[in-house]
Amino acid sequence: MSEHQQPLSGIRVVDLTQIYQGPYAALLMAFSGAEVVKVEPPGGERLRGAGGAKTPMSFAMLNSNKKSLTLNLKCESGIAVLKQLVAQADVLLENFAPGVMDRLGVGWPVLQDLNPRLIYATATGYGLSGPDRDLLAMDHTIQAASGVMSVTGDADRPPGRAGGAPCDIMGGIHMYAGVMTALLGRSSSGRGTRVEVSMLESMYYTLCSEFTALHAAGGVLPERNSARSPAAAAPYGRYRCSDGWIAIICVAEIHWQSIVRVIGRADLANDESLARAPLRKAREAQVNALIEAWSGQLTRDQAYAQMREARVPVAPVRTIDEVRVDPHLHQRGMLEWIAHPQLGDIVLPANPIRYADYAAPQLSYYPEAGQHTDEVLGDWLGMDAQSIATLRRETAI
Amino acid sequence: MSEHQQPLSGIRVVDLTQIYQGPYAALLMAFSGAEVVKVEPPGGERLRGAGGAKTPMSFAMLNSNKKSLTLNLKCESGIAVLKQLVAQADVLLENFAPGVMDRLGVGWPVLQDLNPRLIYATATGYGLSGPDRDLLAMDHTIQAASGVMSVTGDADRPPGRAGGAPCDIMGGIHMYAGVMTALLGRSSSGRGTRVEVSMLESMYYTLCSEFTALHAAGGVLPERNSARSPAAAAPYGRYRCSDGWIAIICVAEIHWQSIVRVIGRADLANDESLARAPLRKAREAQVNALIEAWSGQLTRDQAYAQMREARVPVAPVRTIDEVRVDPHLHQRGMLEWIAHPQLGDIVLPANPIRYADYAAPQLSYYPEAGQHTDEVLGDWLGMDAQSIATLRRETAI
Repeated sequence: MSEHQQPLSGIRVVDLTQIYQGPYAALLMAFSGAEVVKVEPPGGERLRGAGGAKTPMSFAMLNSNKKSLTLNLKCESGIAVLKQLVAQADVLLENFAPGVMDRLGVGWPVLQDLNPRLIYATATGYGLSGPDRDLLAMDHTIQAASGVMSVTGDADRPPGRAGGAPCDIMGGIHMYAGVMTALLGRSSSGRGTRVEVSMLESMYYTLCSEFTALHAAGGVLPERNSARSPAAAAPYGRYRCSDGWIAIICVAEIHWQSIVRVIGRADLANDESLARAPLRKAREAQVNALIEAWSGQLTRDQAYAQMREARVPVAPVRTIDEVRVDPHLHQRGMLEWIAHPQLGDIVLPANPIRYADYAAPQLSYYPEAGQHTDEVLGDWLGMDAQSIATLRRETAI
Repeated sequence: MSEHQQPLSGIRVVDLTQIYQGPYAALLMAFSGAEVVKVEPPGGERLRGAGGAKTPMSFAMLNSNKKSLTLNLKCESGIAVLKQLVAQADVLLENFAPGVMDRLGVGWPVLQDLNPRLIYATATGYGLSGPDRDLLAMDHTIQAASGVMSVTGDADRPPGRAGGAPCDIMGGIHMYAGVMTALLGRSSSGRGTRVEVSMLESMYYTLCSEFTALHAAGGVLPERNSARSPAAAAPYGRYRCSDGWIAIICVAEIHWQSIVRVIGRADLANDESLARAPLRKAREAQVNALIEAWSGQLTRDQAYAQMREARVPVAPVRTIDEVRVDPHLHQRGMLEWIAHPQLGDIVLPANPIRYADYAAPQLSYYPEAGQHTDEVLGDWLGMDAQSIATLRRETAI
């Protein structure tokens, strides 16, 4: 393969998405060589302004390697340009509320007619059908509706948020996956289709362990526990060190043998009362106390190093600031320092999916709103400077 | 398109994966029409036995619509059969620790040589390179290493787990996405490739909001708060009702206007001291108390209905038992009741990605270990009953 060949070379994407969910799908397409044109309202999409004076880091993280074209979808000539772009595109992405594209006159039936090879992908909170279709959705409310909150935190406190925005990103990667699948389908059928994902449905499988516990207990809900999921493993939790925490999960009996040696309690190696996971689980507090009697005397990094050395499944509980400068992630090329004129020296993430036979594309930071308007209108639609000037006068771009 | 045509019709997958991460990728392939052969050690993969006497629900959730073939990879003739299968396959999936496939003599270079069109996909905790490559990984330890734990829970308690197994499923869907992308690349290059994903890297983007806060505060870590992420929105949290909780996020000022009306405090609509999100955020405790003074008098469902009616982004904090029987998810065909001979009446999830022009395949519950061994050896390799009997005698299958 040519050095510049990428798996999605030649694929054109019209990306109407905003905030986190859709932009993540579009980002991964750009990282795999698709030409992604981010279509923004004049002034830029909502997330650009969410940082006040400065573009927020989230926008920088999610919009590398894209082109930006501004288009006013509230005027007729803006819609006309969108249709012309769609006629030249392989993929359209949108994460408006259900019905918005139809009201703009560019719903799936219209665009399918215009370009039967188009993959039209829609990502919403609850999907395009069902009684909850029109319910407003954000990562936060989907965490509540999906059951994630109910199993996050401790039983003596309110249900808690899972850190981050898992529902947004999970929706986004399912959107990406659906578009890839539909492109494969097109390669045999010759026809595009509409791909539909929802944040709610994308989260269902993350609760495997909890559904297992519910079923095993005949319908009794597992108790919320911030230290571990409801599985038979023990020890299983995060353990206090002098300056932080380590997370341990004892998956096999050999790990228990290693743990007792590391914590200086080799005398327990043959203790029948702790010889199997269910027995240890029944004495969870005692087992955890044994470990913290050891870890409390050490720094996090000392405790981590000893457990790691003994081949126990362990990790330090790292702050996001540590993750950002993780030598492992930087060595692998997943993270890269970029000097940005406004944001300063920032760390940008690359593609979490890598291919042995395709070179990772160079990371280039997000475009300004409308930075590629003239270029794309010229390249894709063959528009000359005068037509573009007219559109600009009409405030269509 | 024919009614039975699916986007991945004709794609053959040899699936060596186990537990959650890889099986989720394979499941979505099966749901899109690929022929997925789950290759298990005689006796079945580890997760089957994790429920003690009964197959755990997690196994049932993750292994619908697959075929199962048992193969002993610790004997020569088992490895020989694997190579023959790979020669007929489009995709191989594995989530062993880095290096295991090489030690078995079936690493990527060997299999690529055997079948240059093969997509070889590997999913691990930390990836195939870098200083942490060989660190044992489970969802739990990746939650710690990725930074997710550090931002889950409350500042006055230890860092907490996000409910569920987000790292496993996030790794799995990235694996699926990578395979689809590589299949597209193959359709132009004619060649397969190795796809590599790691749980750690798959989680990075979920922390967008936290990285934004870190950057905006000049490197000061946001404080752990189980009610909300570190964003400017207010109100933003979960609010106590008489019998449960609702989650609310006030994304736009119009929502604030709706909220004060719903909670019977229309007098605050013009209160300048609460007129914008940053002002309300500065008085977060007061704002939250206003809402709970109202919600505490109502049941969760009453409070939810009123906020929903007023078009505020809201959701009930639902238990997983409620999610399992959610009329919305059942109406949409995402969830289905199945009568299972051993597990009883269970709810199985379908494909979270749907396509307007492809009928969703009928959901069929997981195979018994080795249920399709003879069928696949016959179909794929043309083996006759005698050759299969020989393999069985050699305990290769």
